[in-house]
Amino acid sequence: MKLVHASDLDPQPVTEQGAANVTVRWLLSRPEGAPHFAMRLFDLAPGGYTPSHEHAWEHEVYMLEGEVEVVSEDGARPVRPGDAVLVLPNERHQFRNVGAAPARFLCLIPLPE
Amino acid sequence: MKLVHASDLDPQPVTEQGAANVTVRWLLSRPEGAPHFAMRLFDLAPGGYTPSHEHAWEHEVYMLEGEVEVVSEDGARPVRPGDAVLVLPNERHQFRNVGAAPARFLCLIPLPE
Repeated sequence: MKLVHASDLDPQPVTEQGAANVTVRWLLSRPEGAPHFAMRLFDLAPGGYTPSHEHAWEHEVYMLEGEVEVVSEDGARPVRPGDAVLVLPNERHQFRNVGAAPARFLCLIPLPE
Repeated sequence: MKLVHASDLDPQPVTEQGAANVTVRWLLSRPEGAPHFAMRLFDLAPGGYTPSHEHAWEHEVYMLEGEVEVVSEDGARPVRPGDAVLVLPNERHQFRNVGAAPARFLCLIPLPE
């Protein structure tokens, strides 16, 4: 059993092209012994956003804090604390902090076999 | 893309032997199109607990609210909001609400292939 608290980890800037003012902490992944999927914690400063991109794996997101919009090919939708979002494989997506305060969410992804 | 809010779902009592005062909501799973793992939301009333059991799949837990202890063969450890817990396959575990208020956590599990 592994216990990890976010405050024990340094937030890492997300440097992928198209991202702004986003950090990530990998809470549970291969180094902790996770067999199948990884739990990451994202923080977006006001005005921050993740890249608008798509990829072959899904996201399972749980919104913790802040006012966020998720942008897909169907447009922008608000995501509030307590919302869960499933981004399907190969679906274009972007998360934008549209509030005046920091935003925080969990984003889980499958690990390669 | 699927958006689900916990308040849109009815909490289901956990009736497994050894559980008390626990409900679950499946936020993201097969019906929503999740390919690999499921996100469930658990609520424990004060004094509530999950069964002390073990199984072949892992848990990835994120504590949202309340004062909880996770009990393993090594004893009880406190889990606070913002803590992530990896329960490894075949590891005995139980979550107990030891506070005066309700407790809430996410628990993700792999889906069968």
